[in-house]
Amino acid sequence: MQIIDKLNSLEDLKGFTCEELEILAGEMRSLIIKKVNTIGGHLAPNLGFVEPTIALHKVFNSPVDKFVFDVSHQCYPHKILTGRKEYYLNPEKYLEISGYTNPEESPHDTFVIGHTSTSVSLACGIAKARDLKGENFNVVAIIGDGSLSGGEAYEGLNNAAVLGTNFIVIVNDNEMSIAENQGGLYENLRLLRETEGKAELNFFKSLGFEYYYVSDGNNLSQMIEALEKVKDTNCPTVVHIKTQKGKGLKAAENNKELCHWIVPNLLDENNEIAQVQNTSCPETYTTITNDFLLKKINQDKTVLAINPATPGAVGLTPDIREKFGVNFVDTGIAEEHAVAYASAIAKNGGNPYLLIISSFLQRTYDQLSQDLALNNSPMTILVNWGAIQANDMTHLGCFDIPIISNIPNIVYLAPATKEEYLKMLEFSYTNKKFPLAIRVPFMNPVTSGKSDDTDYSILNKFKVTQKGSDVALIGVGSFYHLALDVANALKAEGINATVINPLFISGLDEELLNSLKENHKLVVTLEDGVLDGGFGQKVASFFGNSDVKVLNYGAEKEFPDRVPLAKLYEKYRLKQEMILSDIKEIL
Amino acid sequence: MQIIDKLNSLEDLKGFTCEELEILAGEMRSLIIKKVNTIGGHLAPNLGFVEPTIALHKVFNSPVDKFVFDVSHQCYPHKILTGRKEYYLNPEKYLEISGYTNPEESPHDTFVIGHTSTSVSLACGIAKARDLKGENFNVVAIIGDGSLSGGEAYEGLNNAAVLGTNFIVIVNDNEMSIAENQGGLYENLRLLRETEGKAELNFFKSLGFEYYYVSDGNNLSQMIEALEKVKDTNCPTVVHIKTQKGKGLKAAENNKELCHWIVPNLLDENNEIAQVQNTSCPETYTTITNDFLLKKINQDKTVLAINPATPGAVGLTPDIREKFGVNFVDTGIAEEHAVAYASAIAKNGGNPYLLIISSFLQRTYDQLSQDLALNNSPMTILVNWGAIQANDMTHLGCFDIPIISNIPNIVYLAPATKEEYLKMLEFSYTNKKFPLAIRVPFMNPVTSGKSDDTDYSILNKFKVTQKGSDVALIGVGSFYHLALDVANALKAEGINATVINPLFISGLDEELLNSLKENHKLVVTLEDGVLDGGFGQKVASFFGNSDVKVLNYGAEKEFPDRVPLAKLYEKYRLKQEMILSDIKEIL
Repeated sequence: MQIIDKLNSLEDLKGFTCEELEILAGEMRSLIIKKVNTIGGHLAPNLGFVEPTIALHKVFNSPVDKFVFDVSHQCYPHKILTGRKEYYLNPEKYLEISGYTNPEESPHDTFVIGHTSTSVSLACGIAKARDLKGENFNVVAIIGDGSLSGGEAYEGLNNAAVLGTNFIVIVNDNEMSIAENQGGLYENLRLLRETEGKAELNFFKSLGFEYYYVSDGNNLSQMIEALEKVKDTNCPTVVHIKTQKGKGLKAAENNKELCHWIVPNLLDENNEIAQVQNTSCPETYTTITNDFLLKKINQDKTVLAINPATPGAVGLTPDIREKFGVNFVDTGIAEEHAVAYASAIAKNGGNPYLLIISSFLQRTYDQLSQDLALNNSPMTILVNWGAIQANDMTHLGCFDIPIISNIPNIVYLAPATKEEYLKMLEFSYTNKKFPLAIRVPFMNPVTSGKSDDTDYSILNKFKVTQKGSDVALIGVGSFYHLALDVANALKAEGINATVINPLFISGLDEELLNSLKENHKLVVTLEDGVLDGGFGQKVASFFGNSDVKVLNYGAEKEFPDRVPLAKLYEKYRLKQEMILSDIKEIL
Repeated sequence: MQIIDKLNSLEDLKGFTCEELEILAGEMRSLIIKKVNTIGGHLAPNLGFVEPTIALHKVFNSPVDKFVFDVSHQCYPHKILTGRKEYYLNPEKYLEISGYTNPEESPHDTFVIGHTSTSVSLACGIAKARDLKGENFNVVAIIGDGSLSGGEAYEGLNNAAVLGTNFIVIVNDNEMSIAENQGGLYENLRLLRETEGKAELNFFKSLGFEYYYVSDGNNLSQMIEALEKVKDTNCPTVVHIKTQKGKGLKAAENNKELCHWIVPNLLDENNEIAQVQNTSCPETYTTITNDFLLKKINQDKTVLAINPATPGAVGLTPDIREKFGVNFVDTGIAEEHAVAYASAIAKNGGNPYLLIISSFLQRTYDQLSQDLALNNSPMTILVNWGAIQANDMTHLGCFDIPIISNIPNIVYLAPATKEEYLKMLEFSYTNKKFPLAIRVPFMNPVTSGKSDDTDYSILNKFKVTQKGSDVALIGVGSFYHLALDVANALKAEGINATVINPLFISGLDEELLNSLKENHKLVVTLEDGVLDGGFGQKVASFFGNSDVKVLNYGAEKEFPDRVPLAKLYEKYRLKQEMILSDIKEIL
């Protein structure tokens, strides 16, 4: 490592020769590969954006000029260049910075960003603030081709195009989203690549942008030349650059989807995909889901699995997608479309299943309300990754309960066991009455040992699994097991608690809850999500006019960032012994 | 009325001569004008879509062929033709049908639709269900140029373009959104109009659609000819038709924005805009808002009023917009962009105010969470029309409290009086710490008679306006006055209640609430929104482990459709005497 040792400021960068910059690019790649393969993270997007980042910092003057990195999957090179190289050089410091842009980390980061398609609108706001204040600098939004399918990106482009002032969009076209790109736009991007940007039919020009094409965005001098040309432009300008996702690492170039985000040690010592012992895959809730869907698809051609651009995150790997055939639809990054589309399919006799992760479900609130709930379409949403965790504050999984369960008409189910999940899936297939969502447990499958005979068409019927008195513990979904643990601890203290698996998150079993008033002093709710607007507060409200006391357990309303789960549980008192002690204090 | 009397089925329509159809169009216009001017409703969009609707039903075979009307502001002609003419002919039946499409009303209506930009995605779902089932019919989405700026429309177009099967989009280009169109797309539409669709640069073609242009969509034979051409197409096709908004009514042709949606009796007996006595306008919360904004804009060039496409709904009439100048931005239908854009302006030293109605705020949940709250940008959202009402189930105003107040970091304020609102506005201008939302009361201004000296930078400090014992009444925002009424009724019964104006919706004054435990048996919450996920349930949860009982009042979780307010209040027990009786039962 030679050049990078000489890099202590962006001034240093600007002084490097082209040759030195090329060497620097190689050094940065090695650092990224080593770090990501050690702690996990976004690999291929960052490898493909090394040279464009060097060019951006060579030509522009950050932080006076402002960069907005869409979804910030590609911001590692930027971090290395802007005073944070130590977090890539020193393995002991690997975990000390975020994998996303964050202004608290550096003045070179303009926003906390982890969801896609936001960069153009955000940059548009920076430009407007600049113009209102009469300031003068460049505003640059950096957006991947994949993110262009999201509605917010389009709304931003449509508005940015008429700014009439300095505004630059770098369209980083690596011919991939997280998985394949989806939609008509991508044929136009292909046409533009094939004609070196010369085709008359041009999506960006049709919206009113000036347009430049760079045939090799990984070529430093091409990139620098193009950026020099658009720097200080006084009209909204798109620079469409073709780059290679995974550039410089064979394994990533050849396995773009697999290497989009990798787990530690995916690569072996030769930087090739490590050979995994071909043992049989363990069963997960994801494999249960996909086995169910495949079975149904084979029986019924109207069953459809829909996912917006993150198939890998819900276990829909390329081989499974191939098995599903036309009965799998990736909408691209287009959660709003995905919900409306699925709702219409359900309303017209199909059987759509939307597989989505909790954090991205919130990208489609209005469609859940208007296109789905208001139309009472019998589609099924399988909510994945819905749980308290804080791997990154941009991807929390604790808000889906307040979102879904406060919209009328949608029935939200929470299985605690594999058998319940299977029964709910079977029920979903027969349901023709209402929109259904199932919170897929974010844990390894737990078996009850006996099949579930619940009739889920009878709404809001909670299951009492242990009859006791004084205290009733209601554990929602994955937290049912925590309720059981607390009940066992209570038993050791001579208290025989009632244990309830509510199964339904979106409504209360009023008959059951009323019956608890007879011989219970306390009802405890446990939910794997934020307390505010959640299940427990409905229970508290229900018992408000009675003598029964209520304790609600769940997450606080906050955005915790990279906090270990044990620490979060401690903070939220989500530990058996803490709950036990709280209960004893009240009884 | 001659032709319309002969119209009893779509078969009749198909049998009419061109001349008869022209006459029918005129008769339909008269019916629409008369009805809308009697009970209010969408005028100009429907007048402009009479001939296209006749052509659609002449050429296609509804309900086998499916029409999806975007936002359904233009569905009245369709209703008249599909078995519902009596609701336009007979004034006594005017109110018996909805102003929007609704499948429960007719098999010719495919969805309940009242929010924009959804039609393409919904139609895409119909097409997919058709193809999965091996059926064979036409699917037609009908979308106005204004709705094309919404992200969901674009996501739909991008996905629909690659369907590879029958799919038709009628782009009804009347050169208007509700107000003016906004964005680069509209330059392309202008170019296409000016070149009669021949320009190479074509937004729709760039997404992969086949494209046809109709220079006069209000010309029946042109329309019929064009639709005959695309009927049974086997690839996604856009028919771009130029129509005149307000067609056939001079007042509407010349006042497109004013006549988009009209109140009863806007037109006089000559079908001209009725002359209103030029008395001074009464003060409303809307005029208070705009006076404040104008004052600030005149003092500070970084203050900005932003609204997504519904300026009239928040009192930003053309004359006020003109006064605001570059300090007003209409983003077009683009709520997601509006929030991200405003957040970035605030983060970069500007002072943006987003004026939005409650029902459309839900179109931007993820941006509230990620672009705004996570970035803690000090922008201000003025939430209008946030209240329990059921004018139409597609435009309810009761969900903004669960949405905003369960997202971390956003401070949601609820003024009960004019003075509080003014102080909150002044505070918002100085706030540089957190995202702020203010729930603008949906009522006439109430004055307290004395200025508000609250320091709103001290979060979650509730105001006790009357100290009592036994019962505490917490009335949120506009319902503070209901709390006062109940307190007065209690006083008459010898009970001296505590009355609290919480001012903050998004957090609790724990110190105050704790102090209530001393000498209060019951806390009553009253909020002008849905109970589920709302303010009251947080209070109930807070008191869960105490002896204080809690009663929560607000709306049930449901989508009430066109229910008179008095009836809703009765159902929700939101009446002074009902609340009084509930309280007495508990004490």
